[in-house]
Amino acid sequence: RINGDRLWESIMEMARIGPGVAGGNNRQTLTDADAEGRALFQSWCEAAGLSMGLDTMGNMFARREGTDPDALPVYVGSHLDTQPTGGKYDGVLGVLGGLEIIRSLNDLDIKTKHPIVVTNWTNEEGTRFAPAMLSSGVFAGVHEQDWAYDREDAEGKRFGDELVRIGWKGDEEVGQRKMHAFFELHIEQGPILEAEGKDIGVVTHGQGLSWTQVTITGKEAHTGSTPMPMRRNAGLGMARVLELVDDIARSHKPHAVGAAGHIDIYPNSRNVIPGKAVFTVDFRSPDLEVIKKMETRMRQEAEEICDDMGLKVKFEKVGGFDPVEFDKSCVEAVRNAAERLGYSHRNIVSGAGHDACWINRVAPTAMVMCPCVDGLSHNEAEEISPEWARAGAEVLFHAVVETAEI
Amino acid sequence: RINGDRLWESIMEMARIGPGVAGGNNRQTLTDADAEGRALFQSWCEAAGLSMGLDTMGNMFARREGTDPDALPVYVGSHLDTQPTGGKYDGVLGVLGGLEIIRSLNDLDIKTKHPIVVTNWTNEEGTRFAPAMLSSGVFAGVHEQDWAYDREDAEGKRFGDELVRIGWKGDEEVGQRKMHAFFELHIEQGPILEAEGKDIGVVTHGQGLSWTQVTITGKEAHTGSTPMPMRRNAGLGMARVLELVDDIARSHKPHAVGAAGHIDIYPNSRNVIPGKAVFTVDFRSPDLEVIKKMETRMRQEAEEICDDMGLKVKFEKVGGFDPVEFDKSCVEAVRNAAERLGYSHRNIVSGAGHDACWINRVAPTAMVMCPCVDGLSHNEAEEISPEWARAGAEVLFHAVVETAEI
Ligand SMILES: NC(=O)NCCC(=O)O
Ligand SMILES: NC(=O)NCCC(=O)O
Repeated sequence: RINGDRLWESIMEMARIGPGVAGGNNRQTLTDADAEGRALFQSWCEAAGLSMGLDTMGNMFARREGTDPDALPVYVGSHLDTQPTGGKYDGVLGVLGGLEIIRSLNDLDIKTKHPIVVTNWTNEEGTRFAPAMLSSGVFAGVHEQDWAYDREDAEGKRFGDELVRIGWKGDEEVGQRKMHAFFELHIEQGPILEAEGKDIGVVTHGQGLSWTQVTITGKEAHTGSTPMPMRRNAGLGMARVLELVDDIARSHKPHAVGAAGHIDIYPNSRNVIPGKAVFTVDFRSPDLEVIKKMETRMRQEAEEICDDMGLKVKFEKVGGFDPVEFDKSCVEAVRNAAERLGYSHRNIVSGAGHDACWINRVAPTAMVMCPCVDGLSHNEAEEISPEWARAGAEVLFHAVVETAEI
Repeated sequence: RINGDRLWESIMEMARIGPGVAGGNNRQTLTDADAEGRALFQSWCEAAGLSMGLDTMGNMFARREGTDPDALPVYVGSHLDTQPTGGKYDGVLGVLGGLEIIRSLNDLDIKTKHPIVVTNWTNEEGTRFAPAMLSSGVFAGVHEQDWAYDREDAEGKRFGDELVRIGWKGDEEVGQRKMHAFFELHIEQGPILEAEGKDIGVVTHGQGLSWTQVTITGKEAHTGSTPMPMRRNAGLGMARVLELVDDIARSHKPHAVGAAGHIDIYPNSRNVIPGKAVFTVDFRSPDLEVIKKMETRMRQEAEEICDDMGLKVKFEKVGGFDPVEFDKSCVEAVRNAAERLGYSHRNIVSGAGHDACWINRVAPTAMVMCPCVDGLSHNEAEEISPEWARAGAEVLFHAVVETAEI
């Protein structure tokens, strides 16, 4: 069994870095706070006797040697970056849960055949630099590294420059590591496990996502002296597309979802009719066909809406991944672990994207989920209990150790 | 007659300060560019033999003495600040048109009985610090100076601090000046004069305005893993209120208008359902009752919309003025001047707010308008012809000189 108190204390210590405004965290990727969080994690890894690898995307790999020099490592981890108003557990639980496995193996003086590597993937959240899961995506060969370096934040700062600036760009070529398997522990970020009183979600699938940046162009004009019939109000066009997005998502029951979290209006002056609205539509479903249908309908009808209003509309895909089916034997290892430890569990589809979704393309992969209060995440009030964290980390421990072989 | 070429050259020279990104200007109030524009105007005033007064709101008063020591001055002017993506003429034409009167009087060696004072009112636009026409409002006793000093921009900088920072806070107590009359020349910012081929608008009234800042609060949550029925999407609530605002304005034909130019979403992350939306609704009409009706309906129905969605909504009045009727004899002076000079003209209601709307409360006031291309303003593409500018300034000249008496 792992040490739940130690795990919890480490989570709380990490949460001191990049505090939010309401009890959560703002430790966005490639900020000074991110660098500080990485340094703390590194110090813990060194104290646990691990050696640290760092690749050219800033992905961190803390390695505990195995007994068989030819055995590929079992990887375990998640991400330490957060949303601007994020919780203390999203990502962090998976990284520090991985570290807790190592600490427990050390305590128990257990050696595994396969090395175990704890990872922190750079920019999972995708808030500062779209898309999400950027660096695990480059690792898995989904994105070109140069393209990733060119991603810009709202202030026009490049990912590549910011990675250098915070001092966490490594020399190791990204994606050259071979994995025996990858496991990620994560909070559910949804309401199902808590509602059903289950300790553990055995993640069989991940739903897919499509991010489309919509740019509506109208004509800036005076809000007072421009008669209503002459207006080309990009903000009003956006309002109609937001309503459309909601309608589309609701018409694909039971699982599809859709919303726009990111909205910018230009020039954003009280007495100027918006000349431009830029916003990102997030559609998701476990069914690729549904995602495609939602996306197609949104583009078609948004085009019609804007045409009718004398507005121009442009679409740009800024992120996306197809629904994922995780590796059957890794999933089985998770289920067996939960069963063996006596935790209640159920199969679950991840509603959020995770680094595991990309890594699944290059290595056998599975995920463990634990409940979170009210299904709430991407909110500073995100909460879990120490017991839930311990249960998740214990299942992770057993699945990883079984796979890494004693 | 005035010197149209000189007026035009001065406008173009002023436009070099705080250039925009598309041929217009970004010389927002109390920025370094504003300070530079003020210094240029001051140097021109000094060259024309005027003495400069500066009050505690940064309002500038450039005075040409009259022949009668007991006669109250005739004031003429507008504002030099611009929108973030503003035009070259909005405000500037009125200030430099006033300066051109002085230069012409000097050329012609004409003395007037009443002094003439050219003014630049601080923060007419209201973009950086709401409300618009802030300093003419303090001058007219509509706002307290301390309240004005406490207005904050989007970065939390105070008006009072920024005024000191740019070095344009004067010693003169605001509002103690007595005026014989006030005249303001301005571009129409609407389509009527151009459409009807009129040279001059004789402004008889100004429509009223109400600015309400609406704050909708929902619950930040993950866009992927939060089921549709559990969402409290403040951005979607905003979309519905924006649609409502448009509907309300269109239902009060022919003159009412409504829109939201300023919209902020929190935390503005692609994968976070908006937890908060803050936007400012701008309603206007020449009829005070209509403004009140629009405002009441908006608040009632926005409340209902938000209730139905599990959202909270809060309203805060952040600006407003009642419809204005300008002084009959000043208006007559404008009409006579246009008539005498042979310019085609018509009566017009100002769709925008102007410093003249506040000054009208403390002095006999009128406005002269000239057309602008496509009625477009609050857009860098705002355009007028040199002939329109000259005609406007000439009518201003005659109205002012008639009122200041030779
Ligand atoms: N787990 C998580 O919140 N990932 C961010 C990517 C997403 O939006 O699903
Ligand atoms: N003239 C002008 O654009 N004034 C700004 C105040 C308003 O919004 O009407």
